Amino acid sequence: MAVEKYGGYAGKILIVNLTTKKVHVKELSDGFVRTYLGGNGFAARLLYDMIDPRVDAYDPTNAIAFMTGPMQGTTMPTAGKYYVASKSPLTNGYFDSVSGGFIGFLMKYAGYDGIVVTGRADKPVYLYVHGKGEVEIRDASHLWGKMTSETQQAIKEEIGDPFAMVSAIGPAGENLVRYACIITEYRAAGRGGMGAVMGSKKLKAVAVGSDGTQEVKIANWEKYQEFLEWLNEEIKKNPATGKGLPTYGTPILVKSIGVQFGAMGTRNHQFEFDPNFNYENISGEKLNAEYLVKHMACPLCPIGCSKVFKDTKGKWKDAQSEGPEYETLYAFGSMCYIDDLGAIIKADALCDEYGLDTISYGVTLSFLMECYEKGLIDDSFTDGIKLNFGNDDALVNLVEKVALRQGLGDKVAEGSKRLARLIGQGSEQFAIHAKGLEIPGHSARALRGMSLGYATATRGGSHHDPRPTGEYAGASDRTAVEGKAEWVIGTQRFTLLGDSMVICHFLERVLGYTPTEHYVKMINVVTGFDWSFEELIAYCDRIWALERCFNIKAGMRRVDDTIPRRFLTEPIPEGASKGMYTDEATLNKMLDEYYELRGYDKKLGIPKKETLQKLGLADVAEDLEKYIYA
Amino acid sequence: MAVEKYGGYAGKILIVNLTTKKVHVKELSDGFVRTYLGGNGFAARLLYDMIDPRVDAYDPTNAIAFMTGPMQGTTMPTAGKYYVASKSPLTNGYFDSVSGGFIGFLMKYAGYDGIVVTGRADKPVYLYVHGKGEVEIRDASHLWGKMTSETQQAIKEEIGDPFAMVSAIGPAGENLVRYACIITEYRAAGRGGMGAVMGSKKLKAVAVGSDGTQEVKIANWEKYQEFLEWLNEEIKKNPATGKGLPTYGTPILVKSIGVQFGAMGTRNHQFEFDPNFNYENISGEKLNAEYLVKHMACPLCPIGCSKVFKDTKGKWKDAQSEGPEYETLYAFGSMCYIDDLGAIIKADALCDEYGLDTISYGVTLSFLMECYEKGLIDDSFTDGIKLNFGNDDALVNLVEKVALRQGLGDKVAEGSKRLARLIGQGSEQFAIHAKGLEIPGHSARALRGMSLGYATATRGGSHHDPRPTGEYAGASDRTAVEGKAEWVIGTQRFTLLGDSMVICHFLERVLGYTPTEHYVKMINVVTGFDWSFEELIAYCDRIWALERCFNIKAGMRRVDDTIPRRFLTEPIPEGASKGMYTDEATLNKMLDEYYELRGYDKKLGIPKKETLQKLGLADVAEDLEKYIYA
Repeated sequence: MAVEKYGGYAGKILIVNLTTKKVHVKELSDGFVRTYLGGNGFAARLLYDMIDPRVDAYDPTNAIAFMTGPMQGTTMPTAGKYYVASKSPLTNGYFDSVSGGFIGFLMKYAGYDGIVVTGRADKPVYLYVHGKGEVEIRDASHLWGKMTSETQQAIKEEIGDPFAMVSAIGPAGENLVRYACIITEYRAAGRGGMGAVMGSKKLKAVAVGSDGTQEVKIANWEKYQEFLEWLNEEIKKNPATGKGLPTYGTPILVKSIGVQFGAMGTRNHQFEFDPNFNYENISGEKLNAEYLVKHMACPLCPIGCSKVFKDTKGKWKDAQSEGPEYETLYAFGSMCYIDDLGAIIKADALCDEYGLDTISYGVTLSFLMECYEKGLIDDSFTDGIKLNFGNDDALVNLVEKVALRQGLGDKVAEGSKRLARLIGQGSEQFAIHAKGLEIPGHSARALRGMSLGYATATRGGSHHDPRPTGEYAGASDRTAVEGKAEWVIGTQRFTLLGDSMVICHFLERVLGYTPTEHYVKMINVVTGFDWSFEELIAYCDRIWALERCFNIKAGMRRVDDTIPRRFLTEPIPEGASKGMYTDEATLNKMLDEYYELRGYDKKLGIPKKETLQKLGLADVAEDLEKYIYA
Repeated sequence: MAVEKYGGYAGKILIVNLTTKKVHVKELSDGFVRTYLGGNGFAARLLYDMIDPRVDAYDPTNAIAFMTGPMQGTTMPTAGKYYVASKSPLTNGYFDSVSGGFIGFLMKYAGYDGIVVTGRADKPVYLYVHGKGEVEIRDASHLWGKMTSETQQAIKEEIGDPFAMVSAIGPAGENLVRYACIITEYRAAGRGGMGAVMGSKKLKAVAVGSDGTQEVKIANWEKYQEFLEWLNEEIKKNPATGKGLPTYGTPILVKSIGVQFGAMGTRNHQFEFDPNFNYENISGEKLNAEYLVKHMACPLCPIGCSKVFKDTKGKWKDAQSEGPEYETLYAFGSMCYIDDLGAIIKADALCDEYGLDTISYGVTLSFLMECYEKGLIDDSFTDGIKLNFGNDDALVNLVEKVALRQGLGDKVAEGSKRLARLIGQGSEQFAIHAKGLEIPGHSARALRGMSLGYATATRGGSHHDPRPTGEYAGASDRTAVEGKAEWVIGTQRFTLLGDSMVICHFLERVLGYTPTEHYVKMINVVTGFDWSFEELIAYCDRIWALERCFNIKAGMRRVDDTIPRRFLTEPIPEGASKGMYTDEATLNKMLDEYYELRGYDKKLGIPKKETLQKLGLADVAEDLEKYIYA
């Protein structure tokens, strides 16, 4: 069993068991890689087979997969990323996150397509994969409690390899904050608590040495070169990837989403445009004019959306961060009603160091601010902190408390779904999450597709399952109900493809918001699969179904495919999207259509037996029969 | 809404939320108490309504219920107990445990039928319920890390009430050992990790003051007196409750089960009678002759099975413990192949102090000893400990390591199911658990009913769901297949009844191994329900179905209704029960019959819609429809 025919692969996955300290190398076959492509596909299949989805995310029998796709190790634009997946402590379901960081390349150079870690170490450890393939489980007791940047630096020094790449957690991951992230260089695998899973395994970091020399084969070199030339040209020509993102990064979105669309959650989505809030104050334009230190880019990325910002004058003078991204400006800014960019930069930098997802942190805080202002919680709940909207001191100072799970921080660490359940008193109406994952800054009310998209996504409230971009651009009418299910499925296929090749979603503007022949070509020139468009679609639907079956075994059903009550019952009160929302009947109508198109049962949202069989998942169908009526 | 017509109740349940620090008093109605009786029934209903069974046991939204039944506060023999239930970190399902301890009485005197705790404190706390009803959430930071006896003593001193009762956890509960117990006086709510759930809530203890004065009404005083007279007389007359248990306690069983039946798991059930093991050395007779310090009894108990034993001469000189019970002699003795009673007494005492369940601890250790001797794990796994059968130093010294989750102890703390999953290499064949709960010292091979009983029990490997006593006594032929499902259901009904009234299972010898008219009378004289026998049975089946529906929502199915592979494939090799076992086909035949009788679907083991409706659980049926096909 080995990958012989195809390009793009090392052909091996490392399986590391921290309980037994045993390391096993799994050889991949031609059949396996053609069926599961890479990244998302590899991880979904391996984790479905390895994990009992009913166990706790923090159970040592949970596993976490660090994966590459066929593009890592090639020169494909935006491939400077890696993919990570596990059962999430926030959603209790299959979860994945893609992050910048050259570590995916180094894995490939070391001869591995990915690393799966299971078990739990009895004391803090880090994993060191040498470039020549050797694997060490090293003591990390001295690193426990350290910040993410310090940890990366210390490990590079320890292993004597300044060019090694290290994916590390901060104190938040160690202390099992449900939305702890993993930091590689300055980039985060942010969402769903992948860092907390590492923490539960006492795994402080994964390091891969820079001394690997295994090359990645390109199946069709000539056509690959042709494709690259075309793609690089298109990226340059496109206004978003060629100008907007390189110049401003994602903060460019504040003014268009917040003002033009009136669709930027504000005061915990009591508004999506609030005439009393000055969106200009947190805009990309202002960031660039007054805070910009320098532009940065992921390795191999011709777009370069990353920026370093610094406050040089205000209350939070000297605060500096890579970021904030648009999502952070939403979560910390409009949601918490804070328009001091210095505070946002400061809190953003702290989140990166302590290892927290800024979206879940900000949205959870915003939820508590509404609870506080409504009198559902009082000062005894908040340790005496006046948790009103606009409290920038709370935003900044609580980061550490959350990461260390101290006082109020210990509560905020649980996320909005759990907090609403415990606070009760009707607060579930405005807990802004789907399946437990806090919803980002793309409106489920102003963009019809996002309501259905969040509801049906494996991960819940992520803008990287459904994609809002096409609806903003008018590629799909954002008010339409008819045909929306098909659109949403298209965007979900698109992100799954990107997460499998492990490339950046920003390419959607060039390659298409939903799968196109471009993607087929991209895969075929590297791997040599000779896939048809139909095979590409079947691949997407296979992996999507696999993720869903994981969630089905974890107990999720159609009843969990929903969005916050607020979005189903309260129209947007002000601004350009005033009056818009998706009511329950409309959501249900779209859901019916969605399941129909996907070949899922409409009552429970479970993939039908024949659907699974058609997708090449007959064994999964058989397994599922033990748990559900087929 | 209040309990007005019926005797036996305070009519109120305390609901304490450690996240919000809010305390709420739930009033019970006549209808509620008649439908849910008490203890097990109250908890099953309240927890079904409060908990999403799909969350982690350590999730702050999990809840733990400390309950009484209608007998607490009366003079009913053996009522000196209380009941505790939660989602278990060991089985991931509904779990309950009954323990000696006068705390149930004090709850009633304080005006509460029970206490449900949800949420999680941000620092260690204990709950103090004053006898006059007031509730305090008190700081327990200074008690964190303390042993169970020291904790109880310290709290009694702190609140200035030497007669208060305190249910406390030790370091094992604090450190989330999956089988951490709760200690009240010297008695344990032992199984399923209820202590770990307390630990996850940072709840060190629940204390109830002795200054309560609320009386418990008896519905029919005259008939109650008559019944009591009769019952006390019968207890005295019965050889087990009148003589065997008072004289020897449960250790009397070693010789009969180990030698006479040849049915006492030995060397991790490689044997159930091993001619090379001297069962005499760990017998009740030897304990009584050489180790007995004194007899003790739970409050109000005319049986008095409890003993204090001390080693006065051997390697473990001065070791002293309340116990060991028979189950501990099995788990530490024959299972770990240790016949030095001093070591067993020492480890037993340590388990009580650190707060560990002796069955799960001993059986897990025994599993690892087999793994070690088979070479599946080596010295790097065991921190250099030679983990051979018979290593009494390991048994004693590891208790602390497990409780503190240090080194090998951190692994042992996970229990055999999870360890087998991580160790692999075929070790799942001999991981001795059902649904993740380690199996006690009553053979699933020599007693046919226990194979079906463990397989179908809500809790898995507990001898307090199915009961072995009747099969030992010949009330049901232990080799029979025919009719065994009915027998098992009868014993499951019996234990559920006992756990609802909250009385001791030892009364089975007097009142019947399966429900009889005696139980009807016992309930009716105290409560005044005027139940018929049919209503009694319907009650039992209602609560059993409710527990099962909790597990169904947690993802369990027929496929989980099983026993260790060893028991299904390897006949007992030696002794009086040589050759006996239940193969898979036989188990399946009994399972089919079991589900048929219970009104559960045979394919998945899910209660049918009409069964739930008939049992008065139409709302549960409706809820379940969102997750399964009815």
